[in-house]
Amino acid sequence: MYYVNPNLVNLHRIVYQNNRKQYLRLDLNENPGGLPQEFIDEVLKDITPKFVSQYPETLEFETCLAQFLNVNNDNICLVNGSSEGIRHIIEAFSAPGGKIVGVVPSYAMYQVYAQMYGREFIQVKYDDDLTISADTIIDALNEDVDLLVLLNPNNPVGNAYSNEEFEKILEAAKKYEITILVDEAYMYFYDNSFIQYAVNNPHILLTRTFSKLFSLGSLRLGYVVGQPQEVKMIANLCTPHNTNAFAMKFAQAIIEKDGMLDDLIEKQLTGKKYIIDQLVANGYKVNAKEGNFIFIKPRNVDADEIVNKMKNEKKILIKSYSGIGSLGKCLRVTTGERQYMEQFLEALLDIDR
Amino acid sequence: MYYVNPNLVNLHRIVYQNNRKQYLRLDLNENPGGLPQEFIDEVLKDITPKFVSQYPETLEFETCLAQFLNVNNDNICLVNGSSEGIRHIIEAFSAPGGKIVGVVPSYAMYQVYAQMYGREFIQVKYDDDLTISADTIIDALNEDVDLLVLLNPNNPVGNAYSNEEFEKILEAAKKYEITILVDEAYMYFYDNSFIQYAVNNPHILLTRTFSKLFSLGSLRLGYVVGQPQEVKMIANLCTPHNTNAFAMKFAQAIIEKDGMLDDLIEKQLTGKKYIIDQLVANGYKVNAKEGNFIFIKPRNVDADEIVNKMKNEKKILIKSYSGIGSLGKCLRVTTGERQYMEQFLEALLDIDR
Repeated sequence: MYYVNPNLVNLHRIVYQNNRKQYLRLDLNENPGGLPQEFIDEVLKDITPKFVSQYPETLEFETCLAQFLNVNNDNICLVNGSSEGIRHIIEAFSAPGGKIVGVVPSYAMYQVYAQMYGREFIQVKYDDDLTISADTIIDALNEDVDLLVLLNPNNPVGNAYSNEEFEKILEAAKKYEITILVDEAYMYFYDNSFIQYAVNNPHILLTRTFSKLFSLGSLRLGYVVGQPQEVKMIANLCTPHNTNAFAMKFAQAIIEKDGMLDDLIEKQLTGKKYIIDQLVANGYKVNAKEGNFIFIKPRNVDADEIVNKMKNEKKILIKSYSGIGSLGKCLRVTTGERQYMEQFLEALLDIDR
Repeated sequence: MYYVNPNLVNLHRIVYQNNRKQYLRLDLNENPGGLPQEFIDEVLKDITPKFVSQYPETLEFETCLAQFLNVNNDNICLVNGSSEGIRHIIEAFSAPGGKIVGVVPSYAMYQVYAQMYGREFIQVKYDDDLTISADTIIDALNEDVDLLVLLNPNNPVGNAYSNEEFEKILEAAKKYEITILVDEAYMYFYDNSFIQYAVNNPHILLTRTFSKLFSLGSLRLGYVVGQPQEVKMIANLCTPHNTNAFAMKFAQAIIEKDGMLDDLIEKQLTGKKYIIDQLVANGYKVNAKEGNFIFIKPRNVDADEIVNKMKNEKKILIKSYSGIGSLGKCLRVTTGERQYMEQFLEALLDIDR
C-alpha cells in the first residue's frame, strides 16, 4: 500500500516570504538596514569559481565561532538557520506521541514541528500583565513531558527570564527528567545568555541564529550549543553540508571585524530607544523589553486595520497579535536604525489618529 | 525520563568535507573548474545590505525553474541540496519500520536516512558485469516495500536505465503500490530524464541538484519534482526558508544566461572523452557510462594505495570502491575540464606503474 506520513496530510504551513522587496519590512525581525555596503563588498571581493563549486567546509568557521563563544568545537553544531536546530532538537529529544511544553503565542514553528513529528504541544499562556512567571511554566511540567521550549527573550512580548527564574525552572525540569530547549534568537539585543548552563549541564540545548542582529537572514545560518554527547545527536540528524559556504564566510567576517557587532548593537539600541520615547510621548502603551521588536497597543484604530493600511498605503510590513495578556490586539514592530523608526512613526501617527 | 531518539544513538555519519582546499578535488563529483570568474563577479555585483539581511524569497526563482523544466510551480519544491529532498521523500513516503529498496554501493545517504528514520534498507547488488538489470530490481520488490530508490545515472558506475527498463520497474512498483524516488543528481551529463514520468504519474518523486553540472556545491540548492499533492507533502516537511537567496540568485543567472549550460556540458564532455581515450590507450579497463565521473580498474597498484599516494604525493583527491561486480577494487574519479584530466592522468601513470 502506498504510504503517506499521516502527520503531514493536514499540516498547516504558512508561506509568507514572497513579494516583500518593495516594502519597509518590520514584520519578521530582520535587520531593516542590514550590514554596511562596503563590508559586504569586502566579503565578496575574493569569491572564486572553486569557492562556489566546492562543497562547504565547516571546520574553520566552527573553530572561529567556538572561540567567539568561549566553548569547544564539540559543544556546537551548525544548522541551516536556528529553525533547523529547533527541528532536530525536537526529533532527537522528544518521543513520538510525547509531550512538549512551550509558551504561546510565540515562534510558530515549535508547534508546527510538534505536529510534524506527532508530538503533543502543551500551551502555556501569558499572564494578564504580559509576563510569564517561572511558576506558571513549572505548573505545566510533569513526568510525561519530554521537552520544554523557552524562547529567551520571548517573542512577541520581549520578556526575558532571570537566572533565578531559569534555575528554578531547571530544577523542576531535572526532577521530571525533561530536556530544555533554550531559543536565543534574540540574543545580543539583550546581554544575559543561558549558554553557560547549556555547556555545563546535560539536557539543555540552546539555539542561536545569524538572521537577526548579524543581519544574514538571506543566507540561513544558526547553531545549537550543548554538551558534546547531545550535540552529537543533533549532528547525526543533519543533512550533509547543511550550512552553505557564503553564510559561514559572512558570519566569520562579522565576528572577526573589530567593532562590527558593537556598531550593529548600537544602531539597534539607538533606534529602539528613539521609537519607544516617541511612542510614549504620543500616548501609546508600549511593551518593549528585550529583543529587536516592540509590542504596541494602538490608540484608536483596530490593530488589523493598521497592519493593512501600513501595507497598502505606507508600504510598511508589521504584524498584529491577539490573545496575549489583557492588552487586547496589539502590533509587533521590528526595531532598527533610527531612519526606519522615523518612517514607521510618521506612518503610525497618520493612520492611528 | 529523558528521551533520546534511539535511531540516532549509534548512527554512523561520515564527516569528510574539511581540509580539501589545497587539493585538486576529484572525489565528490563537484565541477573541479567551476563557473567562469566573470560570470560570478556579474552575479555578485549588485548584492545590497537588504538582499543579505532579508529572508529569502522563492517565488521568482521557482517560476524561472518551472519554466526551464516546462512544469508548473506546484510540481516543484526547492530544497537545501537534493540530499534534503531525498530525506523528506523518505520521511513522507515510507513508514516507521517500513522497507526501502535501493542499489548498493551508491550514494550513502539513502541508507543513512533509512536508519535515521527507523526504516529497513533492502540492498540490491550490481551484477558481475557492473550492470543492474530491471529484473534484479523487480525481484527485490514486494507488497511490504514502501519506497524504491533509483539513482539515474547511477553512481559510482554510471549506468543509466532506459525508458523501457524504467517502465518495467514502474509497472512492478504499481502492482505492489510502492513509491519511486528517482535521483537525477547527474542529469545534464546525460540526456535522458524521467521527469515526465514524475509529472504525469502519482507516486514518483524526482530529485535534482545544482551542485554538479551547475557548479554551486558551496551554496546548497536542489529540488523535488512530482505531482502537486505529493510535492505538497515535501513542502510541508521543509524548514522555513530552507533555501538561501544567494543559491537561488546564482541558479537563476545560470538558467537565464544564453549558452552557459551548453558551455558547461561541452567542457565536461570534452574532458571526459579525453581522459577515457587516454586511459584506454594506456591499457586501463574503464567503466565510463553517464555522469561526471569514471570508474577505473588500476593496472598494477592497489586502488587504496593509489588513493593515498594521489592525496599525499600529488595533492589530488579521488575515491576507491570495492564489492561492485567482478572488477575488484576500482577508482572513482570525477571528470571535468581537460586541464584537470591531464593533471590526473600524469599522476596516475606515475603512481600505477
